[in-house]
Amino acid sequence: MNNIIRVGITHGDTNGIGYEVILKALADERMVELCTPVIYGSAKVASFYRKAMELEPVQLNRINDASEARDGACNIVNVVGEDLKIEPGQPTEAAGAAALAALEAAVADLRKGNIDVLVTAPINKHTIQSSSFHFPGHTEYLEASFGRQDGENTDEAKALMVMCTDYMRVALVTAHTPLACVAQTVTKELILERLEQFNQSLKRDFGIYSPRIGVLSINPHAGEEGLLGNEEKEIVVPALEDARAKGILAFGPYASDGFFGSGSYKAFDGILAMYHDQGLTPFKTLAMDSGVNFTAGLPVVRTSPDHGTGYDIVGKNEASPDSMRAAIFMAIDIFRRRTDYDHACSHPLRRQSTEKEKRDDSRAE
Amino acid sequence: MNNIIRVGITHGDTNGIGYEVILKALADERMVELCTPVIYGSAKVASFYRKAMELEPVQLNRINDASEARDGACNIVNVVGEDLKIEPGQPTEAAGAAALAALEAAVADLRKGNIDVLVTAPINKHTIQSSSFHFPGHTEYLEASFGRQDGENTDEAKALMVMCTDYMRVALVTAHTPLACVAQTVTKELILERLEQFNQSLKRDFGIYSPRIGVLSINPHAGEEGLLGNEEKEIVVPALEDARAKGILAFGPYASDGFFGSGSYKAFDGILAMYHDQGLTPFKTLAMDSGVNFTAGLPVVRTSPDHGTGYDIVGKNEASPDSMRAAIFMAIDIFRRRTDYDHACSHPLRRQSTEKEKRDDSRAE
Repeated sequence: MNNIIRVGITHGDTNGIGYEVILKALADERMVELCTPVIYGSAKVASFYRKAMELEPVQLNRINDASEARDGACNIVNVVGEDLKIEPGQPTEAAGAAALAALEAAVADLRKGNIDVLVTAPINKHTIQSSSFHFPGHTEYLEASFGRQDGENTDEAKALMVMCTDYMRVALVTAHTPLACVAQTVTKELILERLEQFNQSLKRDFGIYSPRIGVLSINPHAGEEGLLGNEEKEIVVPALEDARAKGILAFGPYASDGFFGSGSYKAFDGILAMYHDQGLTPFKTLAMDSGVNFTAGLPVVRTSPDHGTGYDIVGKNEASPDSMRAAIFMAIDIFRRRTDYDHACSHPLRRQSTEKEKRDDSRAE
Repeated sequence: MNNIIRVGITHGDTNGIGYEVILKALADERMVELCTPVIYGSAKVASFYRKAMELEPVQLNRINDASEARDGACNIVNVVGEDLKIEPGQPTEAAGAAALAALEAAVADLRKGNIDVLVTAPINKHTIQSSSFHFPGHTEYLEASFGRQDGENTDEAKALMVMCTDYMRVALVTAHTPLACVAQTVTKELILERLEQFNQSLKRDFGIYSPRIGVLSINPHAGEEGLLGNEEKEIVVPALEDARAKGILAFGPYASDGFFGSGSYKAFDGILAMYHDQGLTPFKTLAMDSGVNFTAGLPVVRTSPDHGTGYDIVGKNEASPDSMRAAIFMAIDIFRRRTDYDHACSHPLRRQSTEKEKRDDSRAE
């Protein structure tokens, strides 16, 4: 077994910009030196988009199973029939089914260990719905997939959506929740759980020893001391107090407009937003092209670009592969850091001796 | 009567950065050539902050009533007693009462026509509360003040909060509403009303002939066709249809993260956000230092800087006067455009003849 990380890449919605950003990202020859890509998709569809936009050619190594993946090559596993109809920019059932087929095959291979990490191209959350997919997005699907299997440790079964760039990480207390349900969904317990997950992920996945987390408020102006809502006093502040009692460096709650407007967000290793648009709108405003969506809290590593299917620009050769490339890099980085962290934590004897030294030091003072 | 516009400026919370940004903005001598400032505050407090931070001196002309204001000078009306205790950075009842006294005096002078426009320095929304001020902010206070007086035309009584820079204007359907109440507060009728107000303001106050308005969604991903909430289908889309039937160029609903992330917002003259943090977080992320809060929809013109009391930086000479300066300029610009627009609209004969020409043109085609 070698150390080259195998990156599974699902093609997403076949009528979207998935193939364009995948092919553009893999066109750089150095990519196969860094990792072994395994695309879950269709060589025929890849060829269609490459020719239609005259993209730089990428030599695809067709394989029947990810276990056959060859290092040094861009591998592709066919997951859809040759008769798949491509209708660029259109939401179709066929494209949704193709997206789901890729996701199911990749998840099965993640379980078997045929691939190390998963990078997903964007899906149409509507057309992908079926008897086996009834989730608002990838995050929830993966949570259900790996939560159910990992019955032993239920703490690991909860997924946390984290949007990241090199300099900013935004996690969400609620992600794909209708706005009308946000306030009632956010509880003290949920915030505390998210803080524990986020703190652990910042340490284990991002290599930050003592992460500082800035927490946003639910209400405008952080509730303005109760004038604009009581959730800060009753829910957020008690959750932060409990988190700090557990050693988590959690600060806030901060009103999101001033927090991002004044640049305060730069002082934190992680930012915990209460709901989707509160966290993702400023994140994308600041970092649209380089943003990566990382699913923390699961036993597997999954990232994706932060854009959608881009139906309006399909086939126009306008899509930037920057976010997809960043998603691949980040999946590799996180997998390595996680392996290192787990390795370091699995040496209890060494830690014991360090603790003993500390005690000796303190006695000497 | 001359044409120099009289700009009333309230000092806001006397323990905040109000005086710092006012004095810095007025330190440029050209300001009094552009307008006649009338500060509602305290010469003593102004002097305290000027000395404490060694700010550039501003010659203040003390007057007893705004009607005595001298053109070419920075006038100041004392609205608080000499014994006001200044506690920089502290929320105190005295500072709240001082803020309210300035606001009440300025509003009375706006009614009398002693000042033409109002620019407000930030208040502490908590300490200002009293028997005569029980509102979440300036916007609602002014709405009540000028709505009640203007009984004849109730359409003019509704205030619309608009955050603006030279290149972007964001209006809010709901402003100081707790998040838990947003979804139920936003109705089709309210959106339509806001669109009509915003459209009229973009024409009358900003001089845009046929404004294009981009409307944000309530739910994440614009509801993802009902998967993440039904408000788009049931409320927002019907409101947009009704607005277009009335000739308003309203587009959307757009998911706020992609709308700002992709730069789509640049294609619109105005952006209508559904709630405070959705609109103001990306606005401030993009334009913190130059943003201005404008209260549209009222018979009077009121602007303010887009920052708060800044308790954490009071007395440190760190506050930027850019937003205050922009607020003064914008109030003057809007007052002039409104005057011009109303003047143009008050010549029905000329409009009739233009329409006749158009009809003749169409016949000739």
